Amino acid sequence: MLETEIVRHIRKLASAGYRNRALVEGIGDDCAILRPGAKEDLVFTTDFVLEDRHFALRTHKPGEIGHKALARSLSDLAAMGGDPVFCLVSLAIPGTLPTRWIDSFYKGLLALANKHEITLAGGDLSKFDKVIVDVMCCGRVPRGKAILRSGAKPGDRIFVTGKLGGAARSQWRRKVIPRVREGRALRGRVTAGMDLSDGLSLDLRRLLLESRVSADLVSAAIPVARGATLDQALHGGEDYELLFTASPGRKLPALPITEIGIVTKGKHGAIRLDGKQLAARGFDHFA
Amino acid sequence: MLETEIVRHIRKLASAGYRNRALVEGIGDDCAILRPGAKEDLVFTTDFVLEDRHFALRTHKPGEIGHKALARSLSDLAAMGGDPVFCLVSLAIPGTLPTRWIDSFYKGLLALANKHEITLAGGDLSKFDKVIVDVMCCGRVPRGKAILRSGAKPGDRIFVTGKLGGAARSQWRRKVIPRVREGRALRGRVTAGMDLSDGLSLDLRRLLLESRVSADLVSAAIPVARGATLDQALHGGEDYELLFTASPGRKLPALPITEIGIVTKGKHGAIRLDGKQLAARGFDHFA
Repeated sequence: MLETEIVRHIRKLASAGYRNRALVEGIGDDCAILRPGAKEDLVFTTDFVLEDRHFALRTHKPGEIGHKALARSLSDLAAMGGDPVFCLVSLAIPGTLPTRWIDSFYKGLLALANKHEITLAGGDLSKFDKVIVDVMCCGRVPRGKAILRSGAKPGDRIFVTGKLGGAARSQWRRKVIPRVREGRALRGRVTAGMDLSDGLSLDLRRLLLESRVSADLVSAAIPVARGATLDQALHGGEDYELLFTASPGRKLPALPITEIGIVTKGKHGAIRLDGKQLAARGFDHFA
Repeated sequence: MLETEIVRHIRKLASAGYRNRALVEGIGDDCAILRPGAKEDLVFTTDFVLEDRHFALRTHKPGEIGHKALARSLSDLAAMGGDPVFCLVSLAIPGTLPTRWIDSFYKGLLALANKHEITLAGGDLSKFDKVIVDVMCCGRVPRGKAILRSGAKPGDRIFVTGKLGGAARSQWRRKVIPRVREGRALRGRVTAGMDLSDGLSLDLRRLLLESRVSADLVSAAIPVARGATLDQALHGGEDYELLFTASPGRKLPALPITEIGIVTKGKHGAIRLDGKQLAARGFDHFA
């Protein structure tokens, strides 16, 4: 099948999916066109999903890879409290993969896209000896309302959604569920937030550095996933839950969240667990 | 060097570059944040540049790869007549590449970014066994003024900027110069347009298909680059000049452009050269 025919097929699949009305033009031109609304900010993120690094063709079905690629990027939108608008998908694949692989990849991706009402509006397609996916997601928030990493203040309480360590416990094979609904509900009510992709200890450190504060955590409070260890919950990575801070008196929406500690005025980025210094040991690509 | 340190370094390089005032937040959070202006449309495009496909580490300096990656994506913005706003750069590299390689890559990219006043606002960084770059560019146009592929009408004249075939003649080693200024000058004055990345015969066919028209070209009119053949000008690809159509009476800005033919009412996508059918033989990734 030629590139032109593959693109025509993807366009057909995408056009059957959710169509955000702000999209003036989707797949088929040099660029996608968005007509932004008044009094809104747009948020943008991009995430790689790479063969033999984030998945293997032997163990992952194409639909799972499509799901994972979009889910990781959506999780970043969720972290900002964004309403999903559109995504661009860059896909490079070996010429030996059958057309039905491409079909299943996009079907897996579009199933998640439709669930979160995000439009597949374009991308790039290339041939390569390994499968490479890069998904760019665009979301929107009311002007000035994006959740940043930099707003945590000493005295704020620290929370996470869901349970931690489950991804590590499953050898990172578990399906990624982006917390889009939760992020949206927390927007305007929290002082800082981010998603947990590389492990609580490393990601919390990043949030604390941006906010120029430190933190005290209580190990007994950390919501460890069933079967996982505290170590996996602290450093395992890929849980894609949300980490956020809120002012002491702030009422929070009814969500599955757990308070795990408090923001303190100490060495920027430092974390203490039960009073002892905690090293950031999460996933670093270049460690 | 750890990922955190590399990201800090990139952020420092980027912060010394051009800063578009519409960017509320750049590198350092989960997403970049843009505050769109009133009465504007935003255009988005993404382009891969892959090792051993678009360049080789043996023959291309890191700064050239950075330039090429942004230039290809900027060329798509130019095709829509967009004013550059910001870009996201996803980069995957082997752990064996020295830090100075990363530094030179971003310096090459940022030199072009500064020239076109586009802000590097974020991206992704990963480790991989080959160098992979995916650049997403965002531009803006006055509302409804983006140049589309779909607006060509029978009777319109067909033009290209610059000369064709030079990239093929140089074995595709020539520096890509995105026609951003030209695209902006043509905005509002042309009926359809796109950039020439895969060769005139294939790209014109795509424009004609979107516009549901056909074309007659005159070989003697085609501006062949010095030393190149007509065949290279028709099918060589990677010239990154602009192809566009304009109404018969329309006055066009003073740019280096050449009229090469006319839009006709025939089989959608068909091209005749000097009265004979011309096959679309440009570059197809999956041919």
